[in-house]
Amino acid sequence: MKIVRTVNELVSITDTLKNDNKTIGFIPTMGYLHEGHTTLMDEGKKDADVLIASIFVNPLQFGPGEDFERYPRDEERDQKVSEQHGVDILFIPTVDEMYPQESTVKLHVNKRTDVLCGKSRPGHFDGVVTVLTKLFHITKADFAYFGLKDAQQVAVVKGLIDDLNFSTKLIAVPTVRETDGLAKSSRNVYLSDQERVEAVHLHKALRRGQQLIIDGEKNPVMIIEKVKKYIETYTNGQIDYVDLLSFPSLKLMETIDQQIIIAVAVQFRKARLIDNIIISENGTVPKAIV
Amino acid sequence: MKIVRTVNELVSITDTLKNDNKTIGFIPTMGYLHEGHTTLMDEGKKDADVLIASIFVNPLQFGPGEDFERYPRDEERDQKVSEQHGVDILFIPTVDEMYPQESTVKLHVNKRTDVLCGKSRPGHFDGVVTVLTKLFHITKADFAYFGLKDAQQVAVVKGLIDDLNFSTKLIAVPTVRETDGLAKSSRNVYLSDQERVEAVHLHKALRRGQQLIIDGEKNPVMIIEKVKKYIETYTNGQIDYVDLLSFPSLKLMETIDQQIIIAVAVQFRKARLIDNIIISENGTVPKAIV
Repeated sequence: MKIVRTVNELVSITDTLKNDNKTIGFIPTMGYLHEGHTTLMDEGKKDADVLIASIFVNPLQFGPGEDFERYPRDEERDQKVSEQHGVDILFIPTVDEMYPQESTVKLHVNKRTDVLCGKSRPGHFDGVVTVLTKLFHITKADFAYFGLKDAQQVAVVKGLIDDLNFSTKLIAVPTVRETDGLAKSSRNVYLSDQERVEAVHLHKALRRGQQLIIDGEKNPVMIIEKVKKYIETYTNGQIDYVDLLSFPSLKLMETIDQQIIIAVAVQFRKARLIDNIIISENGTVPKAIV
Repeated sequence: MKIVRTVNELVSITDTLKNDNKTIGFIPTMGYLHEGHTTLMDEGKKDADVLIASIFVNPLQFGPGEDFERYPRDEERDQKVSEQHGVDILFIPTVDEMYPQESTVKLHVNKRTDVLCGKSRPGHFDGVVTVLTKLFHITKADFAYFGLKDAQQVAVVKGLIDDLNFSTKLIAVPTVRETDGLAKSSRNVYLSDQERVEAVHLHKALRRGQQLIIDGEKNPVMIIEKVKKYIETYTNGQIDYVDLLSFPSLKLMETIDQQIIIAVAVQFRKARLIDNIIISENGTVPKAIV
């Protein structure tokens, strides 16, 4: 595995790769790699001739009160993990390398952001799409991999790629779950034993919502109510939101007539968990989501 | 010459060209082609294996009071002119083809726009960089050609390409002039005979500014004053602006210590003429401008 730290070096490498007609898979990360990332790497390895991953804690996507400085970093371990999962080129630029001069152009996401977790992070996705635009150009990625755990990010990146005609194809990778259904997350370790038992009911609540749709329910309000009720009954967590929206456009709907997402965020004592399912209008799991 | 009207067809063609390792030159235009455009085509023909031009009157770059609907169109003539100047692929998309869905992402230029002609066209360059981002992706251009007559556009596009790491290289092509020095423009036909005689003094005024710098003048205010005075003395036009700014950052300077632009805009009775020169800090003409 090759470590690359400058934009110019990576551009020169990817120029050569494209001249040789290699396909390039790309996994953008902020490091501190966990199973969510390695699942993306394993997927990328299947599709592409050359797999590039990046580790870059992007200051643009952190708000003023957020934890940019305290964001965990462990480059040595990340290098090992990346190598173990078939990464060919690991790109680790500094902030100065990515943003060498005062920027003249900003990207702004004006749809799909004022719902779900984006509501409470104004400007976050502007930073995400700006750094992705740069990274897609630098890596010349044919495929870029994103986990559906962060479904809103998938929706926003899908919008970016479609609106601006990027040649990079977005690959949305299903959420990895524990055997009991709990979505894997580095935050799960903060759950108490009792909360860990309860947390499985987030996924069960989503499945319950899905079943209602399969049974013919078309009214989002009814489904949201029942999913909320389920979570309130089976957990002591505090519901932040339960939403049912079109996907990937993330709009409120009066009646379910297209692919949707049901998404939940629940605050436990020391961990805020999120989960979602994306399903077609008749309740089945779609083959291709975006 | 091949006419292409859909994004998908052009993407498929440029995919094949890149697989065959052809270099692609690109001239974006709004049609109604004149010598300014054909000069860019002739330049592109020298550098690239395949020359693509686009004709697209981009609604995003017109303000509410501006002339999007009335912008002149002559597709038949444009096709002939393009073919005569070596264009291999002429891309003529409709507005629906370029903007098929409600957009989720906007580009915003936050530097280099509140000076020169940009001052009076808020939002104009946001529309320019948005359509160029799409066109650079669709055409997979290795080189894109822009005329230095619109130097502010060159500065903005340079910022776009550098900030977002586009692989497209900007080629800035010097302004084409009549033998007496007047910058060529489709608006020159609106000049009266007397104004046509006077108009040559715009370029002469710029050259006078250049001479002052060669002679050691470092104070922008002094140079601007003398250029203004020269134009006022030798023409009956109304000066809109005479500016001296760093180039391509387009900032005001206290003293001349880097590459600069001197730019003028003068309103004659039926034509508003613009012109500029870009020179190094010691007054010489730079070989590579951006």
